[in-house]
Amino acid sequence: MAKKQTIFFNNQPRIISSYSIAGPKEKYSVFAPYFDLVLKNDLWDCSSYEMTERKMLEHVIFNAIERAKLSPQDIDALICGDLLNQIISSSFAARKFDVTYIGLFGACSTMAESLAVGACLVDGGYFDKVACATASHFSSVERQFRMPLELGTQRPPTAQWTVTGGGCSIVSNKGVGPKITVATFGKVADYNVTDANNMGAAMAPAAMSTLLAHFENTKTTPDDYDLIVSGDLGKLGAEILVDLMEYHGYKLGQNYMDCGHCIYTNGQHTFMGGSGCGCSALMLNSYLIQKIREKEYKKVLFMATGALLSTTSSFQGESIPSIAHAIVIEN
Amino acid sequence: MAKKQTIFFNNQPRIISSYSIAGPKEKYSVFAPYFDLVLKNDLWDCSSYEMTERKMLEHVIFNAIERAKLSPQDIDALICGDLLNQIISSSFAARKFDVTYIGLFGACSTMAESLAVGACLVDGGYFDKVACATASHFSSVERQFRMPLELGTQRPPTAQWTVTGGGCSIVSNKGVGPKITVATFGKVADYNVTDANNMGAAMAPAAMSTLLAHFENTKTTPDDYDLIVSGDLGKLGAEILVDLMEYHGYKLGQNYMDCGHCIYTNGQHTFMGGSGCGCSALMLNSYLIQKIREKEYKKVLFMATGALLSTTSSFQGESIPSIAHAIVIEN
Repeated sequence: MAKKQTIFFNNQPRIISSYSIAGPKEKYSVFAPYFDLVLKNDLWDCSSYEMTERKMLEHVIFNAIERAKLSPQDIDALICGDLLNQIISSSFAARKFDVTYIGLFGACSTMAESLAVGACLVDGGYFDKVACATASHFSSVERQFRMPLELGTQRPPTAQWTVTGGGCSIVSNKGVGPKITVATFGKVADYNVTDANNMGAAMAPAAMSTLLAHFENTKTTPDDYDLIVSGDLGKLGAEILVDLMEYHGYKLGQNYMDCGHCIYTNGQHTFMGGSGCGCSALMLNSYLIQKIREKEYKKVLFMATGALLSTTSSFQGESIPSIAHAIVIEN
Repeated sequence: MAKKQTIFFNNQPRIISSYSIAGPKEKYSVFAPYFDLVLKNDLWDCSSYEMTERKMLEHVIFNAIERAKLSPQDIDALICGDLLNQIISSSFAARKFDVTYIGLFGACSTMAESLAVGACLVDGGYFDKVACATASHFSSVERQFRMPLELGTQRPPTAQWTVTGGGCSIVSNKGVGPKITVATFGKVADYNVTDANNMGAAMAPAAMSTLLAHFENTKTTPDDYDLIVSGDLGKLGAEILVDLMEYHGYKLGQNYMDCGHCIYTNGQHTFMGGSGCGCSALMLNSYLIQKIREKEYKKVLFMATGALLSTTSSFQGESIPSIAHAIVIEN
């Protein structure tokens, strides 16, 4: 491969601390016992859902830092993004911390994008400790991307439910914790899906593109991982990904899961499951990282997927370009 | 300093190629002879201003690559961002290139942010060649952030004019061209300015914060640079920055210029001057880089400034957090 989509980290930066937050609907997830904080209501004493999302992000960053027995002054950079226009949750959260700030946008792929960029910056010796974080809130995202909440618009069967949640990981060149050993950055894929209520179908080709590059560049197969996790393809998107990968000769078996597909239970009427950048951030920084720490999973391929649309692009008749970034976490 | 806001590049990545594009109003800039392409009209045969902005970005990326005598397949990563919601110009432009894509958001600081991140990734050996780019279009940005264009809303005296323009730099670990020797990433600063028509005042404290950190960490003074360039503070913002720096004991003299302040001529009725991420991108990738190549300026401190607001944050009564990222370019 002429192009180095995949990066191998010689110094293997470590995730020394993680913290997760979830909304009231997410309380009924089977993974809820692993969530660090579950909100009792949607607003959390804020005057708007956007303010709540920001407060959630501030909360996970602050608590991930504290859990690492550090203070914000010990963090060299905050690498952060979210779904709101101009990533205001991240930028306004960064205002609370006297820390270098690198703003990213990768839609729902942000958790993996921030960890991949953060791992590069720590591995290269540019920073000692960075905080990688993202969050989403159902109500802020839904009213920005789709319809006013008050309308109670009917959702089509392919729709997903934006997760109210978030997470932060502290990546460090020293300390104890699972290592980030490899990162595969994604390319934009667009198979001409135009339905903004069918994100799984739009994102599955990007997930396939990143997985194929990753397996080829690392000379690994799905069997080499205890767990392969995609972000928020949802039930339909995950099925499409399995089909696409099978077509290319890779079998995603029992060791494959999608955060969006499994975060909600069947009775929660979320149709294809969860979505939003908080979906994979919440799952990684709670259930997944704990199972990796406990060595139930020793080698995990974590790939967050993002649909790079805006309301403007959809109104102008555009299809939905997507991307997926992946990292390998080992313990 | 416990915190490493400033990074010194051992391998000194080079800017091997640059390309710039400008709109029809920018044709009357005194710097216009340095612009690579000046559009004859605002739409450039596109069906919307957003499509024009995207086409501009695609054009600068493609031509910067071609000017380096490379093909898109030789580029390891595209590091890109813009001002539109969900940075659609960047993501949709990335769709045109079969290249790894890292999406950023730093508002008008994007050119410096992408070069700083790109320089880290090249310096660290993670990528050989990256394309760093951004663009803005007056009409797409103005109608998104402020008012429908058809209203012809009166502009207050502190307003700036979003530059229709863009630029792309190819950063490489090999080849001929000016070197990026240092990067200072910014922290978010917010001095409680709430007027979205006075971005210069909002951004000046962020520019000050980054300059102070840069001078302190590099043990340099303004006199050590042939030129210190800020992005789009405009006339008022640049004056505030000079005052703030003087208060802190640094004199920004004849070797200081602001791209926003000087890009338009007095007769163009842009009040405080230009703004937008295309402003500093256009200036860097045309006039500035040529003067650096010709060694008229041997050591330049390039600092792009960004106001991290959204319409939602302003509607909710928030102030305007800002950021500035800086790089040193030497030849």
